[in-house]
Amino acid sequence: MILCDIGNTSVDLFINGKRTKLCVENFDPATFEDDVYYASVNASINEGIRERTNWYDVRVFIDWDKYYPTMGVDRIMVCEAVEEGVIVDAGSAITVDVMHGGNYQGGFIALGLRTAQEAYSRLSPALDVSFNFEVDLAKIAKNTPDAITVGFLAPLIEKIERLGKPLYLTGGDGRLLSHFLSEAVVAEDLIFTGMKKLIEKGVKC
Amino acid sequence: MILCDIGNTSVDLFINGKRTKLCVENFDPATFEDDVYYASVNASINEGIRERTNWYDVRVFIDWDKYYPTMGVDRIMVCEAVEEGVIVDAGSAITVDVMHGGNYQGGFIALGLRTAQEAYSRLSPALDVSFNFEVDLAKIAKNTPDAITVGFLAPLIEKIERLGKPLYLTGGDGRLLSHFLSEAVVAEDLIFTGMKKLIEKGVKC
Repeated sequence: MILCDIGNTSVDLFINGKRTKLCVENFDPATFEDDVYYASVNASINEGIRERTNWYDVRVFIDWDKYYPTMGVDRIMVCEAVEEGVIVDAGSAITVDVMHGGNYQGGFIALGLRTAQEAYSRLSPALDVSFNFEVDLAKIAKNTPDAITVGFLAPLIEKIERLGKPLYLTGGDGRLLSHFLSEAVVAEDLIFTGMKKLIEKGVKC
Repeated sequence: MILCDIGNTSVDLFINGKRTKLCVENFDPATFEDDVYYASVNASINEGIRERTNWYDVRVFIDWDKYYPTMGVDRIMVCEAVEEGVIVDAGSAITVDVMHGGNYQGGFIALGLRTAQEAYSRLSPALDVSFNFEVDLAKIAKNTPDAITVGFLAPLIEKIERLGKPLYLTGGDGRLLSHFLSEAVVAEDLIFTGMKKLIEKGVKC
C-alpha cells in the first residue's frame, strides 16, 4: 500500500516506511501500479487521478460529522493520528488543531514561516530581512530582524503553548518550531500515521 | 506649520488640526509654500523633498540613542507621543511598541490585517476568504473564515494584552482592532502628536 499526500506545490509519497518528495510538475499518477491511498488538497491533480482505479481518496473514510466541510483533508489526517493533544502542522500555512478523546475540538490557521517572511518583504524594502531563529521570543525587540521574528512567532508560540498538551509538531517546519516549543514531540510522518489509522478503521468496518 | 506623514502608498497631511490623505502618485511637494515638517519612510519621495528649503525632516530632532538605527521614523513618532504604555500602529504592518518613563523598551512588527489576508489568499483558493471580525477570539474555530481570523488575530491580540497598559491604538485599522481590545484608547492623530511634541522640544533646545 502506497500513501500519498498531495499538496499545492509538492507530492509526498510514503512507500514501505520511506518518504519521497516530488514537485507537482514531476508527478505522474500513471507511473504507479500498486494501490495508492491519497489525501489531496490539489484540485487540478484530483482531475487526473479520479479516472484511475488503483487510486483511493481517503476522503471517503472520513467521519465528516467530526470535522467541518471546508477543512483541508491533510489537516484532518494529522488530527486522525492523535487521540488527545494539540497538533501543529507547519508548512506554507501553520495549522493548529486540538483533539480531545478522539474528538475534534477546533483549531486555527496561521501563515507559514516562509509565507509570513515573504509578506513582510513585500511590504517594504526595510522589512526584507530574514527571521532570526536565535532570538529570545520572551523579549521585545530592538532591531528589525528580531522585531519581525518576535512579531510573527512570539504571539503564535505563546498561543500554542496555552492550548495544552501533549503537543505534536509536523510539516516541513515542524523541527524548526520545536526550538521554541521544547516539550513538543516532532512527528514527521504524522499525516501518514493518520491516513493509515483511518484506512485500517475504514476497511475493517 | 504643516505636519506630513509620508508612507509607501499614501501621504497624510495635518494642517490646522485637519487631516488630508493623498495617494503617493498625487503628491507634489512643490505645491506647499508654508513650512512642512515631515516623517517619511518613502525613499523615492525623500529624493524630491531634500532640495526644498521649506521641508524639514523630523529625523534630525530624534534622539537616536533611545531607538535603533533601522527603526521606522513613523514608529518613532508614535512612541514620542507616549510617555508610558503600549502603542499599536495598525497599518500595512502592525507595529507594537512599549514606552516606560519616556524611554523606549522595544517592540515588534506583525503583518497588517490586509497584508495577512492577502498572504492567506495567495496560499490557496480555499483560504481566499474574508476575515470574520465578529468571531470570538477566545474560542478555537470550526470553519475557514474563523480559522484564519483566530489564527492571525487571537495570538496577536493576546500578546498585546499581556504587554501592559495603558494601550494606545492608531493607524488605519486602529479602530477595527479596538473591537478586540476594549480598554484601549483609539488615538488617530498619534503620529502628529508625537511629531509636534518632538519638534517643539527640538526647537526649544
